[in-house]
Amino acid sequence: MPQMRGIRQLAKHLDISIGTVSRALNGRPDVNEETRKRVLAAAEELGYVANQSGRSLRQGTTNVIGLMIESSKETVENSDNFFLGVTGGLQSVLSRHKLDLLMLPCPNDEDPYEYLKRMVARRIVDAMIISATQRVDKRIDLLVKAKIPFVALGRSTSGGNHTWIDLDFEGVAACAVDRLVSKGHRRIAVAAPSNDINLGYIFVDAYRQSLERHGIAYDPSLVIRVKSSEQGGYQAGHEMLRLDRKPTAIILIYELMAIGLYRRLNEAGIVPGRDLAVIGFREEPRGKFLQPSLTCFRMSLRDLGVELAETLLATMPAYAEHYPKGARNTIWPLELAPGESDAFSLKA
Amino acid sequence: MPQMRGIRQLAKHLDISIGTVSRALNGRPDVNEETRKRVLAAAEELGYVANQSGRSLRQGTTNVIGLMIESSKETVENSDNFFLGVTGGLQSVLSRHKLDLLMLPCPNDEDPYEYLKRMVARRIVDAMIISATQRVDKRIDLLVKAKIPFVALGRSTSGGNHTWIDLDFEGVAACAVDRLVSKGHRRIAVAAPSNDINLGYIFVDAYRQSLERHGIAYDPSLVIRVKSSEQGGYQAGHEMLRLDRKPTAIILIYELMAIGLYRRLNEAGIVPGRDLAVIGFREEPRGKFLQPSLTCFRMSLRDLGVELAETLLATMPAYAEHYPKGARNTIWPLELAPGESDAFSLKA
Repeated sequence: MPQMRGIRQLAKHLDISIGTVSRALNGRPDVNEETRKRVLAAAEELGYVANQSGRSLRQGTTNVIGLMIESSKETVENSDNFFLGVTGGLQSVLSRHKLDLLMLPCPNDEDPYEYLKRMVARRIVDAMIISATQRVDKRIDLLVKAKIPFVALGRSTSGGNHTWIDLDFEGVAACAVDRLVSKGHRRIAVAAPSNDINLGYIFVDAYRQSLERHGIAYDPSLVIRVKSSEQGGYQAGHEMLRLDRKPTAIILIYELMAIGLYRRLNEAGIVPGRDLAVIGFREEPRGKFLQPSLTCFRMSLRDLGVELAETLLATMPAYAEHYPKGARNTIWPLELAPGESDAFSLKA
Repeated sequence: MPQMRGIRQLAKHLDISIGTVSRALNGRPDVNEETRKRVLAAAEELGYVANQSGRSLRQGTTNVIGLMIESSKETVENSDNFFLGVTGGLQSVLSRHKLDLLMLPCPNDEDPYEYLKRMVARRIVDAMIISATQRVDKRIDLLVKAKIPFVALGRSTSGGNHTWIDLDFEGVAACAVDRLVSKGHRRIAVAAPSNDINLGYIFVDAYRQSLERHGIAYDPSLVIRVKSSEQGGYQAGHEMLRLDRKPTAIILIYELMAIGLYRRLNEAGIVPGRDLAVIGFREEPRGKFLQPSLTCFRMSLRDLGVELAETLLATMPAYAEHYPKGARNTIWPLELAPGESDAFSLKA
C-alpha cells in the first residue's frame, strides 16, 4: 500500500497549519516568502506528492487515456512494433492537454471483453482506444453503455454511431489485385487471418470484388487461412504448394507473414518475383531485409497515432472545441511501395 | 468525462432504494430472488459498473501495478519486443492476486524523472517496475521517498537498499571474452551504448576485467560507442573498419546491433565467422535469420517477467507472505547459444 507523504504529514513536520502549507504549495500570494521556501524545501525533502487522484475524482476525470492492446504470444514472437509506433503520435497530441497515455495489455488467456469491463470498473481512464476489433465486438457495446468516450482502431459490425479509424484494406486489396491482373495473373491467392478479426472479412470481401471486376471467378480454395504471424506466413506457403492448381501470385494480409512465406518458398527453391508474385501488407522494418525486396504498402504509424488522438479528443466534451473536424470515421490510406517480389509478367 | 451508470441511477431507474440495490448487487440474502434478478438485469442493461476507484481509494490501494517503459524512436524502429515479452510472465503472477498491469510509456521527449513524478502523483498504481536504469537515476530516490514499492530492472549507483533484478552482463562479457581468447583473439572490440544507461558501464567494466585476466591490455579505441539500435550496429561496423589496427573480433551489447553490423560487413565483403568473429547479445527472433548464424545468449523473457513480479510482490506487505524467498536482488543468467559467427580460430 503506497504511503506517500501528503499535505498533512508535511504540515505536521513543519509545525505550521495545513492551510498555510496548502497556500504555499499552490503559490498563493498570502504566504510570506520565507515560509514558502521552507515548505517547498520540506516538500522536496520528504518526497511530498500532491494527491492528484483525489483531485481528479472530485473533478470526475483522471486525465489519463487508455490504449488497450493485445499481448498475445504471437504479437511478442513477431516483435510487432505496431502499437509502440502509434504511441509516439498519440502522446504528441495528448500532451497538449496534459493528458497521459497508459497501455492496457490484455493478457492472452483472458477474454478482451471481461478485461475491458474490469478496466472500466477501475475508472483509471477518461477515454479509451481499443484495437483488433472483432466482427462482433461486445467491447464496443460496453463502452457505449458506460458512456466512456472511445475510438475503435478497426471496424466492426457491433455498435453503430461510435467513432472508428481503420486502415484502407479495400484500397490495398484493390491495388494489389489490379497490379497482379495487369501482369497477367488470374490465379491469385490470399493469406488471410484464421481468427475472427474484422479486417480479415473486409480484406477478403474487397479481394473478391476486385477479382470479379476483372471477370475472374472467386475460388475459395485460394483463400488460405493462417495465423497472423511469421509462422502463419510459412504455413500459407506450405498450403499453397499443396494445391492441385497452384496460384501464380499471393497477397498477404499481415506484414510479418512475408518473412515466413519467403522461408518456405526458399526451401522449395521458389524465388519471389521470378516464380511467384508476392505482395505483402504493411512495410515493416524486418521486411526491408527480404531478398528480393517485397512489394508492399507504406504508412506512418506516428501520423495514425496523431489522427487517433485528435479523433478521440473530438469525442470528448472537454476537448472537442479544439478539434473542429469532429469525431469522423476515417479510412486510413496506405501507399504502394513497389519492390521486386512481383516484378515479372505472365504476359510475356 | 466518464458518466458511467452508478448505483444511484440504477436505483432511480428501478424505483427501489439504493440500499436494496446495493444488497442485491452484493448477493446479500435479505433480498428476494425476484428483486435480485430485476436489479441484475437492469445493471446489465444499463451498463452499471461498480465504482472500484472509490472502493480502492478507501482501501488505499488501486490493485494496479505499473511498468514504466521507454517508447523512444529507436525502440520503435527496432521493433523491440523485450517489454511485450516480459508482460506475459508478469501478468501470470499478478493475476493470482487480481492485480492488473499497466504499461506507462514515457514519451521520448520527456525526462523520465519528471514523467514518473507525475505518474506517482496520479496515484494510479500500487507499485512500480522501472527499467532502463541510468548510472545515476533520480527515479529510484523518488520512489524510495514516496514509499512506493518498486523493483528496478537494471542496476544503478542511485538508491541503496532498493530491490533490483538485472541481466548478467558480467557473465556474458566474461563468457564472450573467454571464448574469443580461447580461439586466439587478442584484439577484441565491443560495441557499447553511447548513452548513460548503466548496463553499458557494467558491461565494459566486465569486458576490461576479463581481458586483464587473460593478460590483454585494455585498449579504449576498441570500445565503440553507438546507439542501441540496428543503425548503431551499422555504425559500429563502419567505425571498426576505419581503425588503424583492426580488431579480429567484436562483442555487441544490444541484440539488434547484429543486424546492422552484418549489413555493414556485407557491404565491405567481410564474412562473420570467417573474416571477423562476432558475438551478439540476447537471442532475438530477428537475429535468427542472420547468415551465418549468430553466436549469442539465450534467456526467457517470460521467466524474467515471473521473477520480476514475484520479487515486486515480496516487497509489498499485502503479498509478501506468499513470496517467502523475499525481495532479493537477482542477477539473471543468460545461456550461451553458439552459432557460426565466431566459428574460426586464429591459432590454426
